[in-house]
Amino acid sequence: MKILIIGAGGMVGRKLTVKLQGAGALNGQPITALTLADIFAPEVPQGGIKTTSVAADLSRDGAAEELLAERPDVIFHLAAIVSGEAEANFEKGYRINLDGTRLLFEAIRQAGQVEHYYPKLVFTSSIAVFGEPLPAVIPDTQVLTPLTSYGTQKAIGELLLADYSRRGVFDGIGIRLPTIAVRPGAPNKAASGFFSGIIREPLAGLEAILPVAETVRHWFASPRAAVGFLIHAAELNTATLGQRRSLSMPGLSATVGEQIEALERAAGLDAVALIRREPDAKIIEMVAGWPKDFDSQRATDLGFVGDSDIDEIIRIHIADELKGKIGRGAA
Amino acid sequence: MKILIIGAGGMVGRKLTVKLQGAGALNGQPITALTLADIFAPEVPQGGIKTTSVAADLSRDGAAEELLAERPDVIFHLAAIVSGEAEANFEKGYRINLDGTRLLFEAIRQAGQVEHYYPKLVFTSSIAVFGEPLPAVIPDTQVLTPLTSYGTQKAIGELLLADYSRRGVFDGIGIRLPTIAVRPGAPNKAASGFFSGIIREPLAGLEAILPVAETVRHWFASPRAAVGFLIHAAELNTATLGQRRSLSMPGLSATVGEQIEALERAAGLDAVALIRREPDAKIIEMVAGWPKDFDSQRATDLGFVGDSDIDEIIRIHIADELKGKIGRGAA
Repeated sequence: MKILIIGAGGMVGRKLTVKLQGAGALNGQPITALTLADIFAPEVPQGGIKTTSVAADLSRDGAAEELLAERPDVIFHLAAIVSGEAEANFEKGYRINLDGTRLLFEAIRQAGQVEHYYPKLVFTSSIAVFGEPLPAVIPDTQVLTPLTSYGTQKAIGELLLADYSRRGVFDGIGIRLPTIAVRPGAPNKAASGFFSGIIREPLAGLEAILPVAETVRHWFASPRAAVGFLIHAAELNTATLGQRRSLSMPGLSATVGEQIEALERAAGLDAVALIRREPDAKIIEMVAGWPKDFDSQRATDLGFVGDSDIDEIIRIHIADELKGKIGRGAA
Repeated sequence: MKILIIGAGGMVGRKLTVKLQGAGALNGQPITALTLADIFAPEVPQGGIKTTSVAADLSRDGAAEELLAERPDVIFHLAAIVSGEAEANFEKGYRINLDGTRLLFEAIRQAGQVEHYYPKLVFTSSIAVFGEPLPAVIPDTQVLTPLTSYGTQKAIGELLLADYSRRGVFDGIGIRLPTIAVRPGAPNKAASGFFSGIIREPLAGLEAILPVAETVRHWFASPRAAVGFLIHAAELNTATLGQRRSLSMPGLSATVGEQIEALERAAGLDAVALIRREPDAKIIEMVAGWPKDFDSQRATDLGFVGDSDIDEIIRIHIADELKGKIGRGAA
């Protein structure tokens, strides 16, 4: 089995690569080749599988064709310009997130017209396809109402995925990832960054800024759960999906206050004391339009497994990123 | 006020042109120029308004820019490759329905970067954005699940319309037209054609084929109602829409049996006897996936007015297409 990961240089892509390298197989079949693609050639982790790293701009004519030259059996399409950048740079967001995705889908269609080619394609969508007004708990039948260009591009990707799958071009599945927490690494400028920051920074003995009220509710998954969703999606028999090829993953609904209580259980009041309240009107307004909770029964019925609680999300971060140690200098 | 109608050569476009020519004004402002565009230059109806007819392929680079040269204040975007053709010709459907729409939106954005330009844009979407499984009555919050490439392209158009409107590129509104009945003219190959055919043909003293059961339920609007929706959309203050720029129009839910009963009331049993049952497994299967009924309260609250009943739909056809006369030779 040959696997292609587009967007392999990102945080989730790197963790997926390591997981596949470790497993050595997908859906019971040995992985014979792994191709990692991103705008910069991704680092190749140590492992027994023959792995190739490629720098590719999916929006360049011919780039998708090159990535498909080996006819991968499974394609993970994780590549995207993220929310903040797609909002700041309208043209770049549409070029990569919409045109890039469409060029990939078209290249698969063209390949299939020359010879038999019918890969499994896992597309990462996002809860950013939903925006207020929303019901308190969002069902899988909810209309997609993105309030960002990024969310719009992901919603369009879902529609294209469904149509190309219906046409028999590939066997597609789209999974809407919750906000990933705890996201490792340095704080970034994403408006959602504080959801990770208020856990990650105090666990490392550093100060974190909380720009919203503790009553704010949001929808989370650990990086480990996200990788699990991707692998389960690749292994899933999509006949069970019908024509509805995209679905919301089983995240965890929690308030900022509940996050802080879990932080206290994990690292004590000293850690909690490192959270500095600094209300930011712009972030407060943005976050107010974001989804808070989902009915992910459909995904659960299909065997997707999320995190059990915020305490587990914190334990995963401590185990996977901090080698089990907390406090200053641990990260 | 300058108005541009793209897709002015189609049935709805022609009726909209005649209506605007007759009214001479839109939203209380006199119409000073009317531009009619289609793949072939549309016929110009008689009327007092200065009218220009243009042949334009919206998917050609530069075509949209040329159509915008006069900076129309209101743009009706009705142009589309219809359902059957977009299904038969994958590339053509995407090129016209997706690329063409996007090129138009982009041309408006580019124009707005050079000088102030903020037109009203009315986009015709379709109930083809919905496909089974569906609730018996479809709310405006229902996820868009097209089962055709045409429906997919319309759903993508809705998403782009919302994002470009949110970005302040234009003031957009998307209206999901019901199946138009009674569609005038000769029978065409559209799978939905029989819904019109079983009224239109017997009213003209001709035989009509009914390929489905009388229990089949569907969602209708007369051509006159459709033109009314378009004009109301162009006049509507979109502040009331929020970010949800597209909505289902108030159609009429009726079964084929109810259509036939109304035909009997309008033209007697002789007309009904002209309907020949000829079940078509392929059409039966397609129609089974189509929407049957909508909750169009949102549109009604915003002042959109549909037909009152099937009898009215038939009366409109007799008045507008048959000059009040029914029977052989009337059409």
